[in-house]
Amino acid sequence: MNYSIIRYILCRVLEFQALFLLLPCIVAVCYGEKQGWIYLFVAAGCLLIGGLGKLKKPKSTVFYAREGFVTVSLSWIMMSITGALPFYFTGEFPTYTDALFETISGFTTTGASILSDVEALSRCTMFWRCFTHWIGGMGVLVLILAILPLAGGYNMYLMRAESPGPTVGKLVPRVRHTARILYQMYVLMTIIEIITLLIAGMSLYDSLTLSFGTAGTGGFGLLNTGAAEYSATVQIILTVFMILFGINFNVYFLIRERRGKEAIKHEEMRYYLGVIAVAVILITVNVKDYFGSIAEAVRHVAFQVASIITTTGFSTTDFNKWPEFSKFILVVLMFVGACAGSTGGGIKVSRVMTMAKLAKNEFSYLIHPKRVRQIYMEKRVVNKETLRSISVFFIAYTFIYAISVLLISLDNLDFTTNFTAVAATLNNIGPGLGMVGPSSNFSVYSTPEKYVLMFDMLAGRLELFPMLLLFAPSTWKRN
Amino acid sequence: MNYSIIRYILCRVLEFQALFLLLPCIVAVCYGEKQGWIYLFVAAGCLLIGGLGKLKKPKSTVFYAREGFVTVSLSWIMMSITGALPFYFTGEFPTYTDALFETISGFTTTGASILSDVEALSRCTMFWRCFTHWIGGMGVLVLILAILPLAGGYNMYLMRAESPGPTVGKLVPRVRHTARILYQMYVLMTIIEIITLLIAGMSLYDSLTLSFGTAGTGGFGLLNTGAAEYSATVQIILTVFMILFGINFNVYFLIRERRGKEAIKHEEMRYYLGVIAVAVILITVNVKDYFGSIAEAVRHVAFQVASIITTTGFSTTDFNKWPEFSKFILVVLMFVGACAGSTGGGIKVSRVMTMAKLAKNEFSYLIHPKRVRQIYMEKRVVNKETLRSISVFFIAYTFIYAISVLLISLDNLDFTTNFTAVAATLNNIGPGLGMVGPSSNFSVYSTPEKYVLMFDMLAGRLELFPMLLLFAPSTWKRN
Repeated sequence: MNYSIIRYILCRVLEFQALFLLLPCIVAVCYGEKQGWIYLFVAAGCLLIGGLGKLKKPKSTVFYAREGFVTVSLSWIMMSITGALPFYFTGEFPTYTDALFETISGFTTTGASILSDVEALSRCTMFWRCFTHWIGGMGVLVLILAILPLAGGYNMYLMRAESPGPTVGKLVPRVRHTARILYQMYVLMTIIEIITLLIAGMSLYDSLTLSFGTAGTGGFGLLNTGAAEYSATVQIILTVFMILFGINFNVYFLIRERRGKEAIKHEEMRYYLGVIAVAVILITVNVKDYFGSIAEAVRHVAFQVASIITTTGFSTTDFNKWPEFSKFILVVLMFVGACAGSTGGGIKVSRVMTMAKLAKNEFSYLIHPKRVRQIYMEKRVVNKETLRSISVFFIAYTFIYAISVLLISLDNLDFTTNFTAVAATLNNIGPGLGMVGPSSNFSVYSTPEKYVLMFDMLAGRLELFPMLLLFAPSTWKRN
Repeated sequence: MNYSIIRYILCRVLEFQALFLLLPCIVAVCYGEKQGWIYLFVAAGCLLIGGLGKLKKPKSTVFYAREGFVTVSLSWIMMSITGALPFYFTGEFPTYTDALFETISGFTTTGASILSDVEALSRCTMFWRCFTHWIGGMGVLVLILAILPLAGGYNMYLMRAESPGPTVGKLVPRVRHTARILYQMYVLMTIIEIITLLIAGMSLYDSLTLSFGTAGTGGFGLLNTGAAEYSATVQIILTVFMILFGINFNVYFLIRERRGKEAIKHEEMRYYLGVIAVAVILITVNVKDYFGSIAEAVRHVAFQVASIITTTGFSTTDFNKWPEFSKFILVVLMFVGACAGSTGGGIKVSRVMTMAKLAKNEFSYLIHPKRVRQIYMEKRVVNKETLRSISVFFIAYTFIYAISVLLISLDNLDFTTNFTAVAATLNNIGPGLGMVGPSSNFSVYSTPEKYVLMFDMLAGRLELFPMLLLFAPSTWKRN
């Protein structure tokens, strides 16, 4: 393990954190809130520590997958620990645990909250809370790769550890160039959403914060009632943008390269949109009597389906009160998640597709043992290494899932609550069912259980292995 | 597809069914119950159809995996359809659907019942109900292989399709010989249990029927209160035998061959016993206040843990009232299940072990990409084919699981009930939690949902693929 290079990159991350923390300071100035000083002090602290720690250059530039995983998971932990400080120091969160829970929930784009009264937050705290979603959506290291001249072999390892999906979608041969294109598209799409919301009559502050929540598929809202009070137009705009941010960014890259025909044929996107369509139809038929008209039902259902499959977690209605059939479809969508290479969480559509194809392939093998066994995704053969890694991901996912539910069961809340609390955090969604449903929050859990759920949020966002490797003793051995 | 050979074997199975149905006739004679005539008529019908259908010899003896899977799944469906007839004709079950549910639950060794008053059953019906467990435990086709001179290549395919576990444990080179040894050990262990229960003061009838339920890891009981009314001695005897029947029969084969040292070192058995020990300790600590003394707590907990992990499903206490932590441990054990090559259901200890090793192996691969990647079970390298088949099994298992919960959710029962109802049937356990807990039964579901659960029981017992292949159009194509 090359400790010095990890220290060096972590200090870089701290400097970026200082930069991010200046944004709520600006908001505080605009609204004349004295909490801004706290953000400024924390930013100064991060800058100081980051700057000092960076003075000593790393002894060696040896950097492998192991260093990549550890750097990414430690970066995220450090971002959360420092990002939670202003929440705690402003006194807006009762304990540091709660502040940390909220920050991890923010950066991992989960959107699970421990607050019952969101509207009581100061403007700058609310802004910081939503902005963490935006940074977490595409990832802080991808941002650093896009901006700084980090030369050497580690770019690829960092990118692989932070980007969601079974394979890393290198858009162009150079990692740094890929990171830059990703952020360009991300910024552009966020700006389009902000403008659309402004046109729909929203204030700049609301448009900005809501767009951060949508773009990162995070889900922190501005109102205690979630998205229920917004006009139908705003709800439809949010639905569309949630779906757009759940699409694999390769599709947007193809459009950018004027390869629209290929973009339309993108297999994962087609399945993703197909799943959304089927889910909307099934749930609408099931809940139509809960709403005044079919149109209203479709609007609410489409919003909810988009919100859950993209793992955003906004809500316009308390789906906890829907019939079991509809609720279970939402639970299934929680696990499926959005496309790989998007800002959404969950297992990812392409993984689920590949697993379904693997199972189907097994059938034809059992019937015709001599047939060639190959699985295609996006018209390419999926290599054995990827197949194995998807299977292992799913196995590790299930193990973490079961252990998490077991541990939080110690609080003796009901099975539905525990099962969906882990589903909502490990898949980075936000609300679950039962006592963690859209009209409730995660304050029902006690402190140790909150740490289990924080681990799940980080493990879910970083796709398990970076976080798990922190616990393997051999990770920490010097070479 | 070679239809004529399948017809021929199915007729053989019908003849065996006729033979099995004579046993409740004998019971009816002993207790002077007129329901015996119904069993006799159904037996005669099976014999007639089986005999007539067998007259025309099969045109070809071509027999591959496909024929093996189809033969096994159709045999089990046919055994259930005919086995349910006396339940219906005696009027002891309200509808044929309920009679079929109970019979499938019997043959698949699930033990899930739709009856609220078990004690109202006639002696012969009760006997038949329990005896289906015993036949289902080791399998009817394995029995036929053991007894009849079925020459040709199909022995192996039938054995593979009916025996539980990721690989077929051929004890000796010849399949027929293996089948014979398995049944010898099965009969011997059942007799030992019967004698032990007789010594403990039970009647012959009760000893026989309870032993059938334990040996097959089925779980149909004789009393409305399950096993709660039995003496502590009987409960301990049942606990021991449940655990014994959940062990891989390879272990008993090694003992039979005087290779005791190898038997003790059997890796799957060690993990299985280890999991039981850990579960008993954790649950006892959690529920000790529910019982008068630690000894009593340990007895009940050990009984329940043994009953759930072996997928038997007997109960001495209503564990539905235990705290969530203990209940969730039981839910996890439902999925783990017993050893491969035992009469128990579930995913099987060896599959879970292999998956855990696979995940662990991935870690060391991520840290040291150049290390040789091999996984060992029972001191042998697990080949890639087996690893793939275990992963695919797990994937298919999860898909069936999710679709089943979705379908039965249409009855709008709560999530805990639906989730554990599928766990209890797909893993062939019997009771779940919530409204299908040990003090309730499956009559809460409506008819279509019962058929979903029947499919799950059959799919679980035959390890998914034989039942799934029935739905693949290419299965039915003639060659």
